[in-house]
Amino acid sequence: MQKLQQETDRLIQTVAREGDRLSGTDRRKFLRNGLTLLGGAAAAVTTGASAEEPFLPPAVPPWSKRLGPGVVTNPYGKPSPHEAHVVRRNVPWLTADRIASISFTPLGDLKGIITPSGLTFERYHAGLPEIEPQKHRLMIHGMVDRPLILSMDDLMRFPSTSMIRFLECPANGGMEWRGAQMDKLQFTHGMLACAEWTGVLLSTILQEVGVQKGASWILAEGADGAHMARSIPMDKALDDALIVYAQNGEALRPEQGYPVRLINPGWEGNTCIKWLRRLEIGDKPWHMREETSKYTDLMADGRSREFTFVQECNSVVTNPCPEKPLKAKGKYWIEGLAWSGRGKIKAVDVSFDGGANWRQARVTGLVLPRALTRFGLEWDWDGSPALIQSRAMDETGYVQPTYAQLRQARGTNSIYHKNAIHTWRLHADGQVTNVQIS
Amino acid sequence: MQKLQQETDRLIQTVAREGDRLSGTDRRKFLRNGLTLLGGAAAAVTTGASAEEPFLPPAVPPWSKRLGPGVVTNPYGKPSPHEAHVVRRNVPWLTADRIASISFTPLGDLKGIITPSGLTFERYHAGLPEIEPQKHRLMIHGMVDRPLILSMDDLMRFPSTSMIRFLECPANGGMEWRGAQMDKLQFTHGMLACAEWTGVLLSTILQEVGVQKGASWILAEGADGAHMARSIPMDKALDDALIVYAQNGEALRPEQGYPVRLINPGWEGNTCIKWLRRLEIGDKPWHMREETSKYTDLMADGRSREFTFVQECNSVVTNPCPEKPLKAKGKYWIEGLAWSGRGKIKAVDVSFDGGANWRQARVTGLVLPRALTRFGLEWDWDGSPALIQSRAMDETGYVQPTYAQLRQARGTNSIYHKNAIHTWRLHADGQVTNVQIS
Repeated sequence: MQKLQQETDRLIQTVAREGDRLSGTDRRKFLRNGLTLLGGAAAAVTTGASAEEPFLPPAVPPWSKRLGPGVVTNPYGKPSPHEAHVVRRNVPWLTADRIASISFTPLGDLKGIITPSGLTFERYHAGLPEIEPQKHRLMIHGMVDRPLILSMDDLMRFPSTSMIRFLECPANGGMEWRGAQMDKLQFTHGMLACAEWTGVLLSTILQEVGVQKGASWILAEGADGAHMARSIPMDKALDDALIVYAQNGEALRPEQGYPVRLINPGWEGNTCIKWLRRLEIGDKPWHMREETSKYTDLMADGRSREFTFVQECNSVVTNPCPEKPLKAKGKYWIEGLAWSGRGKIKAVDVSFDGGANWRQARVTGLVLPRALTRFGLEWDWDGSPALIQSRAMDETGYVQPTYAQLRQARGTNSIYHKNAIHTWRLHADGQVTNVQIS
Repeated sequence: MQKLQQETDRLIQTVAREGDRLSGTDRRKFLRNGLTLLGGAAAAVTTGASAEEPFLPPAVPPWSKRLGPGVVTNPYGKPSPHEAHVVRRNVPWLTADRIASISFTPLGDLKGIITPSGLTFERYHAGLPEIEPQKHRLMIHGMVDRPLILSMDDLMRFPSTSMIRFLECPANGGMEWRGAQMDKLQFTHGMLACAEWTGVLLSTILQEVGVQKGASWILAEGADGAHMARSIPMDKALDDALIVYAQNGEALRPEQGYPVRLINPGWEGNTCIKWLRRLEIGDKPWHMREETSKYTDLMADGRSREFTFVQECNSVVTNPCPEKPLKAKGKYWIEGLAWSGRGKIKAVDVSFDGGANWRQARVTGLVLPRALTRFGLEWDWDGSPALIQSRAMDETGYVQPTYAQLRQARGTNSIYHKNAIHTWRLHADGQVTNVQIS
């Protein structure tokens, strides 16, 4: 053991001496030779700014020389203090107050497809109801043979199932309809998350209560002060709608509907009623406030589309983005997220010249229906300005539209369902800004 | 709107009156009629204890009548205060101190297959090194053409990939080798977690440095005070070993190796070096402390098996368990977790009579290689004592052994790699205890 450690220390010292011995230029060459695949890009970061900066081999840092704190100091763990900037944020002017408001997922700092529950965007219509789970009840009634009132314990006795699905507010990107406005990825696309949801299929509960002939709609109502309620077609209820009590393995967080919510996979987040207290089965939609005055699409001719439930195919590049500028020219892993409320993502293309040329990206992880899908590709940045875009296609063959195509179909009065191809302008200094090109 | 709300309130009052009108027995019948599929099980919970207890329809609770707090109060969200019991716990007598210690995942409270990062079990050999990510370096050297020192920024430039895989300490269940000892599921099986891991394939980095002819092993070393180090065969490194910087979408938590760790999917958690600072490529294993005096298997004849990397097929019933007793007879959703370091789970059987009879369980979610797999089945408990077991089979055809089979092969000196069929004794009062039957 001791001999091995001595050898290790000797080796590290050799590498350190090698670094010290070399001049600034040679030092860069030394590292660049080791980065053939990256084309010297990483070397530019490692050797950093000036030739005067001391070379830093992995000599034994202070934290490797001492005992750290042990267990039980963190019975429920938290992120590193060095990640304190990775938080949900709101846009003060966007809503009238903080009670009926929105916070956004920090997409630029996230990896993979799972969104941590603590970073999942929030949307409130009357703030956060602080529910005592033992007293919470879910009533299922209306056009049913056996109305039912369930406690949380009751609900846990039904067969349980899990699915990884995205959740997106239909207003995601809504501030961009008339032009580029928001200055961060967190605000252009951050009403978006993806999680493993666990609960009871709504179809199981409907079988339990016995749906009567002619029933075709279900009203889902929340226990918040707004009694947020949406009408859901029976087809969706019988397909994959899930009465959810857990997100990413643990009980739902309060801001996500604790102790129970509805998830309609791939559909407007607004239909995924949080703090679910009531499911009424009927034969027509209810035309509630949040499906008439809100969450409808005002078309160019002044008419309004109602019940546009599906979140269409969409995508965005998450690296680089305004929060993640590039530091120097060289090779990078350009990545992003794609999703479709209609099924799986089939392909994602990326352009670096505003849509003139496209390269197919790689999908790097699970490809699940109605889930975020991670894509990426290698790119050697020569330091020139660029217009970076992504364009996703889903398994139905639907391709994400340009802004010109979207505006031709929908006009500019809309708030919801903006899924146009997004553009980041990469400047010569590596900074990234939000722009729109048709 | 107002009319609808009036109708809703009227309806709720009707249901409430219906409840008040009925005697205790009728009340139970009323609900039981609505629970045909559950066979009255849920009704027993809903109508609860005594006939005197008032029926509780979902009348408007206080939290539905007021505004709650809005956004920005939780820039990084936390679980509900009602879930404060769902935490990692340690066993004070198990290790000499809290610095070199273990905390366990609360499996009985978890759903689906993702383990929240804040609840992922911990294992320290010199406590938690508090690393400054900007100063952290990963050195790759030894039998390579181009030794390399990477900063975290460098590492992020390589192609990134994500995979959902379990992580298990090989000592999981080690306290049970000589008989049932631990009184909670959290302690019998809680050195187990499953997460979406994101990072760079080790094979990508090996391609970058150029592995020399004859190289066959890699030493992975951590930056903690223990300089925890393990020898990894080249085959695994070239297969699916991942240099990981993110867990469940966000940066690794400090206790999971922030800013970077190794994950060897399906292999001993101990090989998945946290706070990774060094990868040395060589032509033989190093026989470090944690692969000689520890993490070896002492056989009945006194010989010791070294480098038993794979976590073999295993499973456990998580509901019921000692922490989750049954409340009354009736139908339940019995569920658990199965996993195998060799690939996908093919099937899980459940017994209620100590292995005399088996029923095939349903898999309820994703089935991924080397990942936790959730299984469940409906069971109508008649109130009799029972011996509940699960038995998993993986895609290689390997079936989880009984204790008798395991002891015949391995003796009783071992600490690691205990994967025998586990038994919960369900008592007539619904309590659950840990027992062993061969």
